[in-house]
Amino acid sequence: MTQLLRVQNFTVSADGIGAGEDQTMDSPFGHPGAGSLFAWCGATASWPNRTEPGGTRGLDDYFTRDFAHGIGAEIMGRNKFGPQRGPWRDHEWRGWWGAEPPFRTPVFVLTHHERPSFTLSDTTFHFVGGDPARVLEQAKEAAQGLDVRLGGGVSTIRQFLDADLVDTLHVAVSPVRLGTGLRLWESPQELLDRFHLDVVPSPSGVTHHLFWRR
Amino acid sequence: MTQLLRVQNFTVSADGIGAGEDQTMDSPFGHPGAGSLFAWCGATASWPNRTEPGGTRGLDDYFTRDFAHGIGAEIMGRNKFGPQRGPWRDHEWRGWWGAEPPFRTPVFVLTHHERPSFTLSDTTFHFVGGDPARVLEQAKEAAQGLDVRLGGGVSTIRQFLDADLVDTLHVAVSPVRLGTGLRLWESPQELLDRFHLDVVPSPSGVTHHLFWRR
Repeated sequence: MTQLLRVQNFTVSADGIGAGEDQTMDSPFGHPGAGSLFAWCGATASWPNRTEPGGTRGLDDYFTRDFAHGIGAEIMGRNKFGPQRGPWRDHEWRGWWGAEPPFRTPVFVLTHHERPSFTLSDTTFHFVGGDPARVLEQAKEAAQGLDVRLGGGVSTIRQFLDADLVDTLHVAVSPVRLGTGLRLWESPQELLDRFHLDVVPSPSGVTHHLFWRR
Repeated sequence: MTQLLRVQNFTVSADGIGAGEDQTMDSPFGHPGAGSLFAWCGATASWPNRTEPGGTRGLDDYFTRDFAHGIGAEIMGRNKFGPQRGPWRDHEWRGWWGAEPPFRTPVFVLTHHERPSFTLSDTTFHFVGGDPARVLEQAKEAAQGLDVRLGGGVSTIRQFLDADLVDTLHVAVSPVRLGTGLRLWESPQELLDRFHLDVVPSPSGVTHHLFWRR
C-alpha cells in the first residue's frame, strides 16, 4: 500500500480563509469568527470533544470519524501548535489540547527552533526543521505503513502543495464569509490542474471538497 | 460508547431492489443486472478486490473504506452466504469469498439449520437461529465493544428493521432500474418516521442515503 499525505477535515470560510492573522492564547484561530467554521464537526455524534450523547450520524459524521482512520502520524505547522513565535522562551507550552491530545500518533511540528520531543498520553510531539520532503520522509517512517495527516494551518498546507507532496485533500467550505485572514485559496478551481475534485454539499450547510491526484 | 447495528454500503436499484429472486451458483445476486449496482464501489481506490493501482478517492471512496472501520462482527442472511436452501447436504460450501473473506471478524449467518462454525483467515462463520434480538446480542458480545454490521440481504435488513434493531443505514441508490426482484423499499421515505435522512448525490451517479435514529 502506498502511504499517502492527506489533508482531512480542514475548514475554510466561503472566501477561502482558514484562520485570522491575530492568533493569541485566547484566540487560537486568530479571528473572532473562525471558531464558528467548525460547527459542522461539533454537531456530529463522532466529535471527540462531545460531552453529551446525541449528535448527527449523516454525511458530516463520516468525515468526522474518518479523521484518525488509517493515519499513523501528523505534520502540523508551529502556529497550529501554539501562539508563540521565534525561539522558545521555555518548554512550558505543550499545545492547546490538554493531557489527552486527539492525535494519538507521533506529531511533527514544523519549526526553525529546536526543542526536545515530549509525550502526552498516546501522542508524541517532535519538533523538526528542514524542507517539506524531508519532514514527510520522517513522518512516513514514524507512521509505520499508515498514511500521514497534514494538519494545517493554511501556510503549512500551501507549503506542501507548492512542493507537490499532497495526495488527497478534504476541505470543508463553510457558508460563513470572514473577509480577512490567512487564505488557503481564491477558489478551489486553482487545484484542478493537479487534482480531481468531488464537490459534495452537506445538509448542514458546509460543502465538502474532496481532491485527489490526477 | 454505545454499540450500534449498522447497515453499510448496501446498494439498491432506483426502484428499491437489492437482488433478484433467482439466486444460483453462477448468479449470486439472482438478477443479471444486480451485479452492476456495485460499480460505484469497484471504481474506488479502497475497493478490497482491486487488482490494479488507481481508482477514485472522492466521496464514494469514503464509504468504501468505512466498510470495516469500527466494526467487530457481521450478521448476514443465509442467502447472502450461499445459494443453498433447506438443510445442509454437506459442509463443503464455505461462502462466495474464497480463502480470505473480506469481513475479518466473526460473522453470524442466520439459518434454521445447524452447522459447525469454521474459520477462514481472519473470519469465523457461526450459524445461528433464533429471533433477531437474540442474534444481535450474540454478535455484540463477539464484537467486543465495536459496532455490528448488518450485511444483508434485503430480507435480513427488513427483518431487523421490523424488530426496530437498526441504528444507522447507509444505502447507495443506483440510477439503474431492475423492475423485478427483492425490494428493500418502495421509497426511502418509508423510514422517516423513525430515522433522520441525509440524501447525498455522488458524482458517480449513485445517491447515498444516510439514515440514523430519531
